[in-house]
Amino acid sequence: MTDAALNYAQEHRQQHLQSLSELLRIPSISTLAEHKPDMERAARWLADYLKGIGMDRTEVMPTGGHPVVYAEWLGAGAGAPTLLAYGHYDVQPVDPLAEWHTPPFEPAVRGDNLFARGSSDDKGQVFAIVAATEAHLQGSGRLPINLKLLFEGEEEITSPNLAPFVERHRQMLAADAVLICDQAMLSPQVPLIMYGLRGLAYMELEVRGPAQDLHSGTFGGVVDNPFNVLVRLLAQLKDPTTHRVLIPGFYNRVRPLSDEERPLLARLPVTDEQIRCLAGVPALAGEKGYTATERSCARPTLDIHGLPGGFTAVGKKTVIPARAGAKVSMRLVPDQDPDEIARLFEAYLRSITPRTVELEVRTLGTARPVIVDLHGAAVLAAAEAYRLGFGFSPAFQRGGGTVPIVRDFQDLLGVPIVMIGFGLQDDNNHAPNEKLNLACFYQGVETLIHYYALFAKTKRGK
Amino acid sequence: MTDAALNYAQEHRQQHLQSLSELLRIPSISTLAEHKPDMERAARWLADYLKGIGMDRTEVMPTGGHPVVYAEWLGAGAGAPTLLAYGHYDVQPVDPLAEWHTPPFEPAVRGDNLFARGSSDDKGQVFAIVAATEAHLQGSGRLPINLKLLFEGEEEITSPNLAPFVERHRQMLAADAVLICDQAMLSPQVPLIMYGLRGLAYMELEVRGPAQDLHSGTFGGVVDNPFNVLVRLLAQLKDPTTHRVLIPGFYNRVRPLSDEERPLLARLPVTDEQIRCLAGVPALAGEKGYTATERSCARPTLDIHGLPGGFTAVGKKTVIPARAGAKVSMRLVPDQDPDEIARLFEAYLRSITPRTVELEVRTLGTARPVIVDLHGAAVLAAAEAYRLGFGFSPAFQRGGGTVPIVRDFQDLLGVPIVMIGFGLQDDNNHAPNEKLNLACFYQGVETLIHYYALFAKTKRGK
Repeated sequence: MTDAALNYAQEHRQQHLQSLSELLRIPSISTLAEHKPDMERAARWLADYLKGIGMDRTEVMPTGGHPVVYAEWLGAGAGAPTLLAYGHYDVQPVDPLAEWHTPPFEPAVRGDNLFARGSSDDKGQVFAIVAATEAHLQGSGRLPINLKLLFEGEEEITSPNLAPFVERHRQMLAADAVLICDQAMLSPQVPLIMYGLRGLAYMELEVRGPAQDLHSGTFGGVVDNPFNVLVRLLAQLKDPTTHRVLIPGFYNRVRPLSDEERPLLARLPVTDEQIRCLAGVPALAGEKGYTATERSCARPTLDIHGLPGGFTAVGKKTVIPARAGAKVSMRLVPDQDPDEIARLFEAYLRSITPRTVELEVRTLGTARPVIVDLHGAAVLAAAEAYRLGFGFSPAFQRGGGTVPIVRDFQDLLGVPIVMIGFGLQDDNNHAPNEKLNLACFYQGVETLIHYYALFAKTKRGK
Repeated sequence: MTDAALNYAQEHRQQHLQSLSELLRIPSISTLAEHKPDMERAARWLADYLKGIGMDRTEVMPTGGHPVVYAEWLGAGAGAPTLLAYGHYDVQPVDPLAEWHTPPFEPAVRGDNLFARGSSDDKGQVFAIVAATEAHLQGSGRLPINLKLLFEGEEEITSPNLAPFVERHRQMLAADAVLICDQAMLSPQVPLIMYGLRGLAYMELEVRGPAQDLHSGTFGGVVDNPFNVLVRLLAQLKDPTTHRVLIPGFYNRVRPLSDEERPLLARLPVTDEQIRCLAGVPALAGEKGYTATERSCARPTLDIHGLPGGFTAVGKKTVIPARAGAKVSMRLVPDQDPDEIARLFEAYLRSITPRTVELEVRTLGTARPVIVDLHGAAVLAAAEAYRLGFGFSPAFQRGGGTVPIVRDFQDLLGVPIVMIGFGLQDDNNHAPNEKLNLACFYQGVETLIHYYALFAKTKRGK
């Protein structure tokens, strides 16, 4: 049965590439309101495709925001285990557009790669799930397991509506394990099972000074310039030498790296120099006492993403802007609580803001950090599936990124979480020229075909 | 002869308001390349108008950038003094557009004011010169003096091409005094003669980190974020307590306020509380040991105007941007040298930039600070003209803003400079809802009519 599925997948590689390209052409940028119709189109495209390959039930289900695509095939019967597989069809914005070599929503194959926004994060991986499912259903007429598919459209905006959705549909989504497919391998020779993820608190602040923009000739030296105040506030968020976040209480709940975990991370075949080359920086920088790998996944940090306001066009304008904004996020690790961190962030900034301006702080989104069980049958099956699909056993790592729903699945469904993925470290996620390695994609489809078969042998409720 | 001109001006107020509105409708934003055709239109409109009122010679003259409008009437003969009057027809950008109550290039009269970008800075004042000239030429057939008009189109971008133009046309521009009309009065009851101006060094910097934008999930805590570095650099430019600029050597050449000058500035009828209300800030801020008035004109300062780069749209994007930019300008006072200050600025920033990033510093424009002679006949005539036009003798003040060409006129033509103007402090120059008080405009026209007559009585070469 697995052989039939594998044969089907190999024979349909070109068709799958074309279908994935169709999906990639839909600019489903969840954070930009003008793309709302594209979100609907992408969801509908997926539901139609899933119906076409023989899923029993396919639905585009509304949420408070962008819709969820849900599909199920429960023909394996009550004795077989049920898997819930998750991915997301929304993508990041594309700016700076000028740096793309081909347009982000016109998929282009160059060499071994397919270039498009969302090719790796996460439409390519969503489609790997779809293709593996198709291979079983079309190759042998059935799946070895009961399968539920859940593709959301708000992952890139920290999934504000998915936890309520999961809570509302606990019965529908009940499963023996959740498979999450939204990550990169260390290399095609080192697939990866992720056993932890960082959380996030994404903040927006605004410093307000004058009632309106002022001429710096008339008022320069007389009033506090909101941007001058803002950079002072932001400069006090992180120590330039130790690279530690200076918000009081920020590290209180950080779980120290255990004596078991540090060697595990140290064994990962990634050197600091490799990371430096990948980032393209003159030198790495970060918290003292931790390797780059440790810093990237097991230590919290703080990044400024942009500073809206004022005059930023070409040329010179001598304005003291009335308002200065900042977009700042903090990556969090167990057991930091994003809501508490957001409060500490605001309280600290208020304590250092001069009375010459007003400060507004908003929380744009939060996600809790997570650590998952490494030792369940569902995870062991994934390790074996990787070995069969890629020819290599996976490494185990904590991830630096954030998939907000992981922690919610863990809390709401109470089953093992398995995090795998078929991207690569240099896929340019969230950046110009995002790409998907096609060999990884095809091997990913085969890995999933194996995973369904291996998962069938795990016991229900384990 | 003056009476005929005054009568003409009073009878033609409506026509002048309509003609000024025509000029204001042309969006002559000098710093934005897409408005280049509008610059040509505005220059041509002025030249045509000046021809129509009877100037002997009117020309739109090319420069390395936007053109100069030049006109002359030399019919007063060799025995009469020659005045060179200056203004600028270019305007500032209009963002944030949403804050304008009526569109910036659709002039609208509300109450006593005419609202439009450029109404006060400086098209309204340029047109006051034009209207006063028209009043003499049309009202009595001649001017009491030889008059040369020079209206430039690059004042808002620090006049990069005007000094070479003046140097190239010294003979054509030779005069006994230069009248500059580009400033605000303290109130309609307190006209103002400006005897000094601050200079400017407008800088742009860019901090470059990763080769391209990175995902903060993967690289947050591993590399220095260019924006985190940038805010640290910018925060070290000014002391938050003393409000002094921290660039080593910045104050070396600053001329201290003299014992004669401090009481002069202290007598100006402007309180710190009035300045605070005008700015609309919770509290003023600035260098210790100086009044707000002193800080606004006789002390140097540093302002951040905008921080381009990264993600600034609505929503959340978790990017570590490859580049982070800043637009920063310094207002300078005698005897600071803008080129030296630009060098000190760059050297200081380089000395505090970590090796994890690259720094680029560009000088976008400079203007030298200036102090002019208070005691010449041309200045005394301006004081008397104000008294006749507005009914009040003027105050004397140093200005905080920058009119780059003032220092060039002083150096290249070697004659007295007279700086007057008919704007008001709350005209919203460089900001949304810029306006011109119409009573001030009409009285300004009359002041200039008187000035021409009074200037006729000064001796040539004095």
